[in-house]
Amino acid sequence: MAFAAKPQAGVDEDAAAGAQADRRALPRPYLLFLGAERDRSYAKTAFGLKDWAPDDCIGEYAYGDSPISLGLPALTPAEAHSRGARSLVIGVANAGGIIVDEWIPHLVAAMEAGLHIVSGMHARLADVPALRQAAEAAGVQLIDVRTPPAGIPVGTGRKRSGRRLLTVGTDCALGKKYTALAIARGLQARGLDADFRATGQTGILIAGGGMPMDAVVSDFESGAAEMLSPDAAPDHWDVIEGQGSILHPAFAAVSVGLLYGSQPDIVILCHDPDRDHLLGYPHQPVPGIAETIEATLLLGRRVNPEIRCAGISLNTRDHDADAAEALMRSLANQHGLPVADPIRGGARFQALLDACLA
Amino acid sequence: MAFAAKPQAGVDEDAAAGAQADRRALPRPYLLFLGAERDRSYAKTAFGLKDWAPDDCIGEYAYGDSPISLGLPALTPAEAHSRGARSLVIGVANAGGIIVDEWIPHLVAAMEAGLHIVSGMHARLADVPALRQAAEAAGVQLIDVRTPPAGIPVGTGRKRSGRRLLTVGTDCALGKKYTALAIARGLQARGLDADFRATGQTGILIAGGGMPMDAVVSDFESGAAEMLSPDAAPDHWDVIEGQGSILHPAFAAVSVGLLYGSQPDIVILCHDPDRDHLLGYPHQPVPGIAETIEATLLLGRRVNPEIRCAGISLNTRDHDADAAEALMRSLANQHGLPVADPIRGGARFQALLDACLA
Repeated sequence: MAFAAKPQAGVDEDAAAGAQADRRALPRPYLLFLGAERDRSYAKTAFGLKDWAPDDCIGEYAYGDSPISLGLPALTPAEAHSRGARSLVIGVANAGGIIVDEWIPHLVAAMEAGLHIVSGMHARLADVPALRQAAEAAGVQLIDVRTPPAGIPVGTGRKRSGRRLLTVGTDCALGKKYTALAIARGLQARGLDADFRATGQTGILIAGGGMPMDAVVSDFESGAAEMLSPDAAPDHWDVIEGQGSILHPAFAAVSVGLLYGSQPDIVILCHDPDRDHLLGYPHQPVPGIAETIEATLLLGRRVNPEIRCAGISLNTRDHDADAAEALMRSLANQHGLPVADPIRGGARFQALLDACLA
Repeated sequence: MAFAAKPQAGVDEDAAAGAQADRRALPRPYLLFLGAERDRSYAKTAFGLKDWAPDDCIGEYAYGDSPISLGLPALTPAEAHSRGARSLVIGVANAGGIIVDEWIPHLVAAMEAGLHIVSGMHARLADVPALRQAAEAAGVQLIDVRTPPAGIPVGTGRKRSGRRLLTVGTDCALGKKYTALAIARGLQARGLDADFRATGQTGILIAGGGMPMDAVVSDFESGAAEMLSPDAAPDHWDVIEGQGSILHPAFAAVSVGLLYGSQPDIVILCHDPDRDHLLGYPHQPVPGIAETIEATLLLGRRVNPEIRCAGISLNTRDHDADAAEALMRSLANQHGLPVADPIRGGARFQALLDACLA
């Protein structure tokens, strides 16, 4: 690290040169594009938006004989535009994160109807010449929410005002985003001033803004997280979506940079009791809950000596109510912490919120 | 983190589209460019190369009345080329990491003399039109060693063959590179098969290759470190240059990604006894040695259960021999570990090597 030559300036100027909006203010509401997707699990972004930002979702648009529906009105781009939609959001993903050729005429038609195109995929919209030309002709934007903004500074470690909660996990994709969303809503329901802060593409679409932490250059990772939750009123809560796991062999750089930059007062440990091995890493056992909390607090104390773990969010979707309750009770006894499944809500979830505010 | 859509492909295609060589084989030997620099501390890259890769340094080139000299022959680019130099290396840095306008005619002249241009600065050579045009006209390369290669995969966490040592630290810029270089040389002097693996720009120039870890996108940080020390013979040692500190509020993402991807058998903790606060972070005390070792082993165990700290490298440059010995003895008693200043060498350094091999 050439410290003397540490830049304070942009890290991804080439990316920023592409068409890009301030992602803190994505053009909403949205028409959700489902393509011809047949597998619901690849439409996670669309379902996440429908579940968590229904007011931003004007309708859905599929072609061919896609059997998937979000239960929203099926609208053409022109119909959606006339009902007030401002953007078409690509609501489906695929293994390569690529823009499928078959989609292009549909995306072009949406632009011709006056809609901006918003994508959370890894591939950049503006890298497809047909899309770039159509956007220029229609005077609309191609918005890649996974492209970080230019000019991210290095982190400062300076303590900021306001309160911060970060969801952390024993693995990827087990409920950190849903937990943060539920907690933000729960705090708001109690009359507190709370914002959900998104760190991944689906969260950014739900929130209408955020920071795509996994796409930021490592040297600026903490600085990006600092940008995401700036100084705030003393009683304001930023509830920050966690990423990966501090003990994950591939993605811990993201998790750790986010931890330092978030300087959380509270962490909530998210866990899936049915996962033995890290998702996609069959040779790597899931780390222990206690070990993950210990590592998180050991590092997090460097930027916030008051950091504490206020509870465990358990993903019990594959269990009935009785089995879920038994799992949560057992874990609560084992760790001496409140345990809740935020999707189930109820008294356990309220107790988790109490513990955050204690 | 959209796990299902995790790309295995390149992260910085735009950067890679620029002129770029395989940085595992930089065109050597070098002519070291000092510009008109008057402050020796800004010429760290040139001094590092002269100290650690003297056989690669044909001469030095300054203009104006620069009072700095490396003690190498002062050569024009044409003279250096005729003596076998293949590249001019920008050996000076500045606070912005920028390419100074004043340098441009000198760099152009070097290209006209047949030399490639190598830079470890943050700014990209090819972004300067005059340099790009001159390189095309002369048929030489503009090589930014701080630009990561395209196609870095995400990490796998898979255990690789061979032995690995990583230098870690309580802060930036306190001796992790020099310690790794000295240990690699020390192992080689004992007849062992050891390679220094560079992770920052100066180290990359010294080694003739490596991975600029602080410039890699976070999601790929561990994968980049895995590329840097691939499977090797069982008795081969990769001695990997550390970056930052796992407890640094700004740069820990780099340190942690490097730790996981390096899966070290041995870590050596590097420390500067005269530093109270993190460099450039006057509000942040330097973390404790024991705390840094604890955090490193807690995380590192996830990818290598055999990880251990074999000793402490103490930077005693500001002390005389007696004071340095007293500091090292005291620290050795306190932590129960061998302590050495690799620059001083001697019995303490040999004992540190013994501990690595034990």
